[in-house]
Amino acid sequence: MAERYIVIIAGGKGERFWPQSRAARPKQLLPIVGDSPLLTQTLERVMPIVPAANIYVITSAAQEKGVRAVCPGLPRDNIIAEPEGRDTAAAVGLAAAVIGARDPKGVFAILPADHVIHHGKKYQSDLNVAFAAAAAEPVMVTIGIAPTEPATGFGYVQRDQPWKTIRRKTVYNVKRFVEKPDLATAKKYLRSGTYFWNAGMFVWSVPVVETAIAQFAPELDAGLKSIRTALAKGRKLGPVMKKVYPSLQKISVDYALLEKSTNVVVLPSTFDWDDVGAWPAVARHYTADPAGNVGRGQRIVEQGRGNIVFSEGDHLVAVVGVDDLIVVHTPDATLVCPKNKAQEIKAAVKRVSALADGERYL
Amino acid sequence: MAERYIVIIAGGKGERFWPQSRAARPKQLLPIVGDSPLLTQTLERVMPIVPAANIYVITSAAQEKGVRAVCPGLPRDNIIAEPEGRDTAAAVGLAAAVIGARDPKGVFAILPADHVIHHGKKYQSDLNVAFAAAAAEPVMVTIGIAPTEPATGFGYVQRDQPWKTIRRKTVYNVKRFVEKPDLATAKKYLRSGTYFWNAGMFVWSVPVVETAIAQFAPELDAGLKSIRTALAKGRKLGPVMKKVYPSLQKISVDYALLEKSTNVVVLPSTFDWDDVGAWPAVARHYTADPAGNVGRGQRIVEQGRGNIVFSEGDHLVAVVGVDDLIVVHTPDATLVCPKNKAQEIKAAVKRVSALADGERYL
Repeated sequence: MAERYIVIIAGGKGERFWPQSRAARPKQLLPIVGDSPLLTQTLERVMPIVPAANIYVITSAAQEKGVRAVCPGLPRDNIIAEPEGRDTAAAVGLAAAVIGARDPKGVFAILPADHVIHHGKKYQSDLNVAFAAAAAEPVMVTIGIAPTEPATGFGYVQRDQPWKTIRRKTVYNVKRFVEKPDLATAKKYLRSGTYFWNAGMFVWSVPVVETAIAQFAPELDAGLKSIRTALAKGRKLGPVMKKVYPSLQKISVDYALLEKSTNVVVLPSTFDWDDVGAWPAVARHYTADPAGNVGRGQRIVEQGRGNIVFSEGDHLVAVVGVDDLIVVHTPDATLVCPKNKAQEIKAAVKRVSALADGERYL
Repeated sequence: MAERYIVIIAGGKGERFWPQSRAARPKQLLPIVGDSPLLTQTLERVMPIVPAANIYVITSAAQEKGVRAVCPGLPRDNIIAEPEGRDTAAAVGLAAAVIGARDPKGVFAILPADHVIHHGKKYQSDLNVAFAAAAAEPVMVTIGIAPTEPATGFGYVQRDQPWKTIRRKTVYNVKRFVEKPDLATAKKYLRSGTYFWNAGMFVWSVPVVETAIAQFAPELDAGLKSIRTALAKGRKLGPVMKKVYPSLQKISVDYALLEKSTNVVVLPSTFDWDDVGAWPAVARHYTADPAGNVGRGQRIVEQGRGNIVFSEGDHLVAVVGVDDLIVVHTPDATLVCPKNKAQEIKAAVKRVSALADGERYL
């Protein structure tokens, strides 16, 4: 009988959390929110519904060591490092190949490693509904997040008519996937009530994924073939990955499969969700002092409101007479940036890499 | 024949330069401007005109070790630590007692340790004029700084008619000393052209100082008597200081002597002068980048103007999208404060001292 699998995608670089995040220690490996790394929190949320032997993490070579360090409960081979990033369609195809080799009809969920979700039980319950849907019919189930604001940083998925009700939850047919909208369009989506944020959470079976790749991404399919063949012959994954992965077609799973497939359904999530895309989002998850300041570590804020102050070690950060500022201290680098300029942190990281010995800070 | 002496007062706590300045490492012991501590720079400016054996530094017990470390050229006994601070009149009286014991008619200059003066030659030349005046007549010579703005943080001295011309420089009688004015009054002073900033630089002889103390501060005079007596008997300064100094009258030299004396003259300075009272003043002494940012150490400013960024060690400070901010990083504490709120740094230091283990950062 086909089993259930979880594939956690832990590949983000997290430049927007510099200097706390680094090339080898990105957002998902940090306790940006909570006391353990976001990847660990993701693992802990899925452990109750899927055995550890069925949980995979796909990460990058640069982060492999860090990922292994925070996933001690997983079998060694279940942590897979891409020799280089080839976007999400390749990662999904790789997951299908690996799971398909041991369970040709296996059903698996693709889940991001770096989102903050406090409602673990609801998350598990929604995943179980999605697994049931994907096991019952050859559909691609996407878990949609009901938008709370007209965000322009996410893709959206529009629901159509109800498809099925599973455990009292309605799953809808999908009318269409849309890329990141402009603000006016995002406002329309929010008002309509039929659009959800595409949070990169999908549940489907190996055959459904492989059929879709063969149909809509034949170039990728051809590249994945050698991986499937090697695994079918009982060979190790590492060598064939190293050989063919870097040349796989680089394309997102949304664009390659979901926008083109007609068998996509959406389950509106019932859990809270935050992708904490940048420092300002972090503030939402901390208890503020009476002046609205949040943070962690040794810090004082004197005559200031709405600041985010993070300090590592015993280092004291004193913020005086300023509002809505982000101050992040790490042992070798400190960032100071207004909350409304957080999108410029990436530009600063570029400036750092251009310094004579800038690499040491990245 | 009476000789010339220099007494450098190195007692300031420099809380306004926290976290670079600390209780045991105040402003005068730091290279806030230039490559050596301000005290060292002061010493180097007076060394060419007075032999090291005639140069004294009066400091606090807390700073004695630090002062000795940056004054290796001075005789050990010429560095005098007050058991506790008793304001400037006591320090001047102590200096007169110490110098008077070896040279009863000695002429000495009182100079602050923590001012920034780039024109060393002009400073020496002005001091020589002041020494000549104080050696020729029983006057108190103050060196007045021509104001460049209506500063409310300094006391002022108003000149009267010319008193004497020495080496082509006019020395004026003093009409009056005034305490720190409000802004409207300071503007009047600036316009009048007859007011100078009182920078705490005085030149006078031992007899002039001792006569004035006896006349205008008899309580202080009585306290100083045991010090004079002990020194006259050839005893060491340390023990008697420890015994009587903490009970000396606590009063400023301006209030105790200068405001009351009628034999005060003022020499307008010809050198540049900056008391660099707080971080914003520091910026004036550094070369700015095209966006007006100044600083020292590993730093980048991305999309920001007019910032002051200081970093110690190899720590990188990245300031992004913000203007006119002070960021000071030290190994155990970092300050972030807008330039126009620099006066609040003292309040922050108080908050630090109230932390459970705050003392370690002070």
